[in-house]
Amino acid sequence: MTPPTSPDGNRPMSLKLYDLALADRDIRPSPFCWIAKFALLHKGLDFETVPVGFSNKQDYPDPEYGRVPVLVDGDEMVKDSAAIAAWLDKTYPEKPLTATPGEAAAAEFYKAWLFAAFFPAVMPMLVTRIHALAKKEDKPYFRQSREERFGKTLEDLAAAKGQKEKLEKAVELLSAPLSRFSYLGGDAPNLSDYLVMGAFMWPRLSTAKDIYTAPEPVAAWTERMLDLYDGYARKAKRPS
Amino acid sequence: MTPPTSPDGNRPMSLKLYDLALADRDIRPSPFCWIAKFALLHKGLDFETVPVGFSNKQDYPDPEYGRVPVLVDGDEMVKDSAAIAAWLDKTYPEKPLTATPGEAAAAEFYKAWLFAAFFPAVMPMLVTRIHALAKKEDKPYFRQSREERFGKTLEDLAAAKGQKEKLEKAVELLSAPLSRFSYLGGDAPNLSDYLVMGAFMWPRLSTAKDIYTAPEPVAAWTERMLDLYDGYARKAKRPS
Repeated sequence: MTPPTSPDGNRPMSLKLYDLALADRDIRPSPFCWIAKFALLHKGLDFETVPVGFSNKQDYPDPEYGRVPVLVDGDEMVKDSAAIAAWLDKTYPEKPLTATPGEAAAAEFYKAWLFAAFFPAVMPMLVTRIHALAKKEDKPYFRQSREERFGKTLEDLAAAKGQKEKLEKAVELLSAPLSRFSYLGGDAPNLSDYLVMGAFMWPRLSTAKDIYTAPEPVAAWTERMLDLYDGYARKAKRPS
Repeated sequence: MTPPTSPDGNRPMSLKLYDLALADRDIRPSPFCWIAKFALLHKGLDFETVPVGFSNKQDYPDPEYGRVPVLVDGDEMVKDSAAIAAWLDKTYPEKPLTATPGEAAAAEFYKAWLFAAFFPAVMPMLVTRIHALAKKEDKPYFRQSREERFGKTLEDLAAAKGQKEKLEKAVELLSAPLSRFSYLGGDAPNLSDYLVMGAFMWPRLSTAKDIYTAPEPVAAWTERMLDLYDGYARKAKRPS
């Protein structure tokens, strides 16, 4: 099936990204959904986002899978941010998300590092805030699923000490590439930028103010990432 | 000045790499010297290594600078592994060490990660072994310079607990790119492979047996790196 095209005759119009939303449906902090959004923007594809909560699995395109992001492109359903990135590169090969296999390998390393260093540092700082911002009917599911995953109450998780220092120590590592290059992708953003900026969107959109200080090269890169694609990420609503 | 050429008429013969050696002059464990050696091998350049000890600064090409690697190419003297890699790419542009700015940016990240995670984990496991393997006249200098740098005696450094676990946790991160790709450079090795394998040569050549277990994708990559360039790294002498 050929997807319907936009007025310029090039871009498919049917792309739908299922995107995690909090009680305010305009607040969309999921780092994994952000990777998918950045990848779609990178490709220059039109897409619409469909907000879903934590618990209303019946509204997900695959309730059994029960997670987002899920991209629906006509008859195709693509689940998980890594699969979405790979599928976009296969289906829309122009503007690849990585220019070489070496860049694709590096993206895997950045991702592993985010899971080893960034997420464990930031998660305790966000978990009760996200609970507070979640839709009322999502709160019990959010609490139960996270407390099961981490083996602690949200409040015990949030009581962890020294997380800001751990987070800043992790983020510091990005100064090395970003002192020499404008993007992790070099002269232009690639998948590695979207993976890391996706992760950075999580604290940004779960809090009213920044919860850590990034070193100058990383702060400057963050601003550049917020400005990309007509300021798409900068326009994303933060809690007040 | 045109450098002298080898019998095939292409390769300069005058490249000399000053390389750190232990009491056995064939044992050359310096990770930074290894980066330079891998970069020279990558370029297919003929070079000879000149062994120097820790303390005989008068034999260094720049005694005041007092560190290695230093590459001497005819009239040029290039100091520090990063400068050597950059200089080789500028002077011998064929077979660049990174294919894209994105790969070069990733190499900076791998390097920062080595300094944040790998070296601090492995250093305490090696420091008294290297002292034991150093030339007799190098031992006082090695002890004094390292004890000053770290603010502890070598023996106190070596007494640190849990280093093997820290090291294995660090190395684990490399499984992510190396499960999907043969090299950190993707299909072929690039500067990132040489940075990381350079670091891996440090424990390999300071000990008779491996001091940590790498997960399978990392172990397989290590074997591939040892095999490169006619097994140059595999042939490097280990202590008995």
